[in-house]
Amino acid sequence: MIRILSETEIKQLAKLDLDVIAAIESGFSKLAEGNATVPPIMMIPVPEKDGEVDIKSAFIKGIPNLAVKVASGFFENPKIGLPSQSGQMLVISAETGFLQAVLLDNGYLTQIRTGAAGAVAAKYLAPEVVENVGVIGTGVQARFQMEALFLVRPFKTIRIFSRYSEEAKDAYAEEMSAKLGVNVIKCDSVAEVVKESSVVVTTTPSREGFITKEMLHPGLHITAMGSDTEEKQELHPEILGMADGLFCDLHSQSERLGELRSGYESGSISTATTVTELGEIINKVKPGRTDKDQITICDLTGVGVQDTMIAVKLYDTAEEKDLGIKI
Amino acid sequence: MIRILSETEIKQLAKLDLDVIAAIESGFSKLAEGNATVPPIMMIPVPEKDGEVDIKSAFIKGIPNLAVKVASGFFENPKIGLPSQSGQMLVISAETGFLQAVLLDNGYLTQIRTGAAGAVAAKYLAPEVVENVGVIGTGVQARFQMEALFLVRPFKTIRIFSRYSEEAKDAYAEEMSAKLGVNVIKCDSVAEVVKESSVVVTTTPSREGFITKEMLHPGLHITAMGSDTEEKQELHPEILGMADGLFCDLHSQSERLGELRSGYESGSISTATTVTELGEIINKVKPGRTDKDQITICDLTGVGVQDTMIAVKLYDTAEEKDLGIKI
Repeated sequence: MIRILSETEIKQLAKLDLDVIAAIESGFSKLAEGNATVPPIMMIPVPEKDGEVDIKSAFIKGIPNLAVKVASGFFENPKIGLPSQSGQMLVISAETGFLQAVLLDNGYLTQIRTGAAGAVAAKYLAPEVVENVGVIGTGVQARFQMEALFLVRPFKTIRIFSRYSEEAKDAYAEEMSAKLGVNVIKCDSVAEVVKESSVVVTTTPSREGFITKEMLHPGLHITAMGSDTEEKQELHPEILGMADGLFCDLHSQSERLGELRSGYESGSISTATTVTELGEIINKVKPGRTDKDQITICDLTGVGVQDTMIAVKLYDTAEEKDLGIKI
Repeated sequence: MIRILSETEIKQLAKLDLDVIAAIESGFSKLAEGNATVPPIMMIPVPEKDGEVDIKSAFIKGIPNLAVKVASGFFENPKIGLPSQSGQMLVISAETGFLQAVLLDNGYLTQIRTGAAGAVAAKYLAPEVVENVGVIGTGVQARFQMEALFLVRPFKTIRIFSRYSEEAKDAYAEEMSAKLGVNVIKCDSVAEVVKESSVVVTTTPSREGFITKEMLHPGLHITAMGSDTEEKQELHPEILGMADGLFCDLHSQSERLGELRSGYESGSISTATTVTELGEIINKVKPGRTDKDQITICDLTGVGVQDTMIAVKLYDTAEEKDLGIKI
């Protein structure tokens, strides 16, 4: 019996809450323990349409199912009135290999688990008390990242900067201030956002680093979650070498697809630089932030364990409530 | 709108016929032209259950959709009364990245496209006239391979050898002789099968080569389709160096997962040995069999282009007939 769940059903079942953050945290913990197998991302480029289909997966020991996520980014879609991103997940039994469920989430679960990873980073790396935060970008992840961050660091003000239109920024400000009951301040530059914030999350598809050393200040934590390909970059590589602590989700992936890539290429960091995976902090193997005045940077590329954790959590709830079409 | 097709519907729509063989042939042709992108297979091992989930895919230029196939092999399943193999495919638009269909084929389409690849190999590599053929193994692929071969070389007799029970062999013999109207002869050794056959197809999960040089004779063609992992092997490596022509589906894959692997490792073949891909013969870039007395060997590991071709063909038919559940 295979369960098929629609986007509407999934959106009703899966919310970005402390439970989801705990699930993602547990995934990172298993990964760092060596109890997760994460194959390299399968990438199928379709250059004719400026598109790419990416497949992520992970088997986590002790978890009876695993997810296979197929996510598409086709950047000519907006020309024909379609969103660039889409995606779905398969839930496969890790006991028999049989398909258990098809999650037609249209990328929603990826948004949730990516937001949750940002919260895990902030939980261990942001200063204890945070009043002012910033976000670069005003897209979907700029929303989920701030929602998730608010659950672990209930801040008062968000400063935003983006290259989108004024309308997009106004919509963001209105939506987030209503949702979280916080002030949202539109800024004219990245520098203005970073200068005034204790936590900054970058959520863009930029191909050039836009946070530079002049913007750094004591007690700043940056989570860069935008880069997930070999071309993308949000931080000027020199700041990686200046941070008091450098962190990531999965080192072998971040050094290929994340900010670490340009760090190593530029020579601002080397194999001698300590880079700590989130799971190592969670497992108390290595420290996170050890002083409120440190500057910390976390590079997130998105790991298959997050997909398996969120998919399995959703699947278990759907089973319990007996939802979806059964075939 | 996403179309969900059940195993029953798929079995009614997809038959192993000359049309399917032509589709698979066209996939190999595009691959050799450089018009297909085939990422390395994603493998997710689950050693706790002697299991593995493998993902194959390919984008083929000019084909508006691509398939992502998720196939499982869990070899402890028979202990709990379940088949080892299962699988399904997603059909993704190569124009927008959006999911078009979920094919719940339970591995059936893989059986079909694998059989069809055997027919393509025989079409170009077997002697023109074939009366006696042989098959090692009496499982599902031993059936599909002979059915497919019969479409391109209408033989009179199949000789079989397998390690399965007498009942399994009798069932195979009865079924295939009824289906194809041919004699099926049970043999007591691999040697007996090979000696009397012009075409031999090996369809086993063996980890040791069982076709040896003493068995070779002029005019023999062997298709080895069993090996698709780094441990499997059906041919003694020395025969690879003795063949008049050595062929495969995808060189970069066969040298890792097929018979070529042990050929290179043992030194029986080297980088100086000519290995021709099926697509190169189809495209008339390199010759196949050039003399009826040659000994030819084709190593098939199964390529994502086959999955995309069969999935797209099935999807097009389902669209035309408006079949399946629509979500």
